[in-house]
This record gives sequence, C-alpha cells and structure tokens, in this order.
Amino acid sequence: MNEHIVKSYEDELNTLTAETARMGGLTEAAVADSLDAVLKRDRALAEQIIGRDERLDVLEADIERKSIRLIALRQPMANDLRRTVAAMKIAMNLERCGDLAKNIAKRTLILADVEPVSPLTRSIERMGRLVAGRLKDVLDAYTASDVDRAIQVWTRDDEVDEHYNSLFRELLTYMMGDPRTITACAHLLFVAKNLERIGDHATNIAEIVHYEITGQEMVSAERPKTDDLRP
Amino acid sequence: MNEHIVKSYEDELNTLTAETARMGGLTEAAVADSLDAVLKRDRALAEQIIGRDERLDVLEADIERKSIRLIALRQPMANDLRRTVAAMKIAMNLERCGDLAKNIAKRTLILADVEPVSPLTRSIERMGRLVAGRLKDVLDAYTASDVDRAIQVWTRDDEVDEHYNSLFRELLTYMMGDPRTITACAHLLFVAKNLERIGDHATNIAEIVHYEITGQEMVSAERPKTDDLRP
Repeated sequence: MNEHIVKSYEDELNTLTAETARMGGLTEAAVADSLDAVLKRDRALAEQIIGRDERLDVLEADIERKSIRLIALRQPMANDLRRTVAAMKIAMNLERCGDLAKNIAKRTLILADVEPVSPLTRSIERMGRLVAGRLKDVLDAYTASDVDRAIQVWTRDDEVDEHYNSLFRELLTYMMGDPRTITACAHLLFVAKNLERIGDHATNIAEIVHYEITGQEMVSAERPKTDDLRP
Repeated sequence: MNEHIVKSYEDELNTLTAETARMGGLTEAAVADSLDAVLKRDRALAEQIIGRDERLDVLEADIERKSIRLIALRQPMANDLRRTVAAMKIAMNLERCGDLAKNIAKRTLILADVEPVSPLTRSIERMGRLVAGRLKDVLDAYTASDVDRAIQVWTRDDEVDEHYNSLFRELLTYMMGDPRTITACAHLLFVAKNLERIGDHATNIAEIVHYEITGQEMVSAERPKTDDLRP
C-alpha cells in the first residue's frame, strides 16, 4: 500500500515534468513560427499562431493546478518540492512567451498591409534566430536536467540585448530617413521588444532550472545586467 | 496544543495577506511616482524609483516562499488554499508592475536629455492617471475582499486600451510631422505600452481577487478582449 502511494506520487511528478516539457515544445514552435510569419509576411501562419495560443493558456492553468495540488496533498520535500515549483514557474514563463509570439503574429497581420522595410528583415531574422535558439537550449537543459547548459544560456543573456540595442537604433534611423516607414517601423520596434522579452524568459527559465537542480540561486550581479533599459 | 496550531496557521495566512497588501502599497507608489517622474522630467525621482525596485523583488520572493511553505506544511483547503495562491499570484503581478515602473523611470532619464514633446505629456498623464487609479482600485478590492469592486476594475479594462490606441496614433502622427521628435516619441511609445501593461496586471489581479473570494473563474469572453494587439 505504502509503495503504491510512493509510486503514484512519483508518477504525478513525472507527469508534471513531462507536461511542462511538452508545453515547452509547443511554445518553441509558436515562437519559431511567429518569426517565420513576420519575416515572410505570412498571414495564414499568423492567424494559425493566434488560434493556437489558447492551448498554451489551458496547459499553463493545468500545470499550475496540478503543482499546487501536488504540494498540498503530497507535501514534497527538498528536491521534489523544487521540481514541482520549477514546473509551475516554467509553465508561467512559457505562457508569456506564447503571448509574445501571438503578439508578433498580430503585428504580422498589420505589417502585411504596409510597404515592407526589407533591409530590416535581416536584422529581425538574426535576432529572432538567436532568441529561438536560446529558448530551445534552455528547454534542452530542462528536459536533460543539464545544469551546465542552463548556465550557458544564462551567461549569454547579453547577446540578445546587443541585438536589440542595435535593432532599436537601426529602426530609428529608418524612421528618420523615410517617415513613410514610421508605421511599419513602430510595429517592428515592438516585434524586436517582444523577441527581447522572450529572451528574458529564456534567462528566467535558466535560473529556475539551475535552482531546481542545485538548490542554489543564481546571482544576478554576476550576469551583465540586462533589464529593460536598452533604450 | 491543537488550538495553538490552528491559531498560528491563521496568523501565517494573515501575515501573508498583509505582506501582499503592503507590497501593493509600495507598487502603487512606484507606479504613481514613475508617472510623476516622466511628466516632470524629474531625474532624481527616476533614480530613486530605480533604486527602490529591488525591495519589491525581495518581497515577491518572500511571499512566494511563504505561500509554498504554507501550502506544503499546512495543507490549506478550499478558501484558505485560494487565499494563499492568490497572495502568491498577486505578488507576481505586483513585481511585474514594479519592473514596468522602473522601466518608465529609466526612460525618464533618457527623455530628460532630449527636447520635450509637450502636447503628448497631457495624453500620457491622462492614461497614467487612469492606470494608477485601476491599480489602486483593485488593491482596495483585495484588502477589503470586495468582489464588486474587483468586477468593476475588470469590466472597465477597455478604457485603458482606448487610451493606448489613441496615444499610439498620436505618437505616430508626431513622428511623421516632425522627425526630430522620433527618438523621444519612440521612448514615449514604450512608456505608453508599459502603462497599458500595468493596466493588464490590474485586470489580472481583479481576476485573482474574484477567484479568491468566489471560487469562480471570470470568463474572459465576457470582457471586451484586451490583448496585445492594439497595434
């Protein structure tokens, strides 16, 4: 009987981790697709991403409910508690990434109606690939419980900032040079900001994975500070 | 002995609610101050807000830790569980509002170096007062456990969107009319976006308070949809 309880408790924990990993895969796909949509001005894909987002919301609510239930009924200790809280927090970060991908998709619909600003497309693409890669890497770290990989994502947070800063300047230069591009550039400014925020969520997830595995907080002072100034 | 345990459990719950309410007060002040700083181009106030943000991060981490501990050790049921989870989630939303206020403060430092775009100040002020008022109202609803007030905040979510949309158009018009304002306007675009996101967090908190008190989810379909498109 006791073993049955222990077994079912481990099952619950494993299910929680698996659901979070699966939500990670769906989010990764949403982010990659939103980047494709904005680069190719693909309305159909954008509409599809917008429609798919609700599933991420439902998954997040489900993971949260299961985590709280597990904490309340199973009273997990140490490692298991960290694992449960990690699933809940990673799901929250993924849900926000999904919202940001949806927002990029919505802006794609607007951008598809205006004149493209082609030279900027390459800069958006570079930044987007970098951010999508970080999200992939940190989800690899999570599913493989690979703390070194999580640390790698975390320490390279400033690369995204550099891309964002240079894209911000590039966008402003375009706007000043040709005021007809202002509407498109204003939306691309938010696309860039959304990508940067997805990168921040990847950093958050890296911290959560690190804490889950080691029980130690990462010290933000050690990381080149990345918060929202990047003017 | 048993009564002692019950008493101390209630104490823990009350402390959690009080700390969350207090964090609410500090966040409300940070948001109101960040608005003043940007409107008055007040660098000293902006620097102060940036310095104060860490306290909100610490409070949030503390409330989260206490909530999880309470769920694990006390196994609260029904109302008490909702109350505990509500404190944790409200603290998360407040921490994000604090980050957004800090970001407005950082942009204030940049805006103080460039030519002011005076006519826009009034629009930013109107939107800012509206958003600060919503945050105040929802925190009133939380501390008074007033579900009607929470519903009021929730149903009037679209007012912020209308302000944001009109401000977005106004900013683009300025940029087009006078390209020298582009840098200032780009930062004001993000200030407006930050205010709108603080408004979204107030809406989230309204949903959490409603669920805490009634045990019922609010149906988003009933609310004029407010997500991030507002182009």
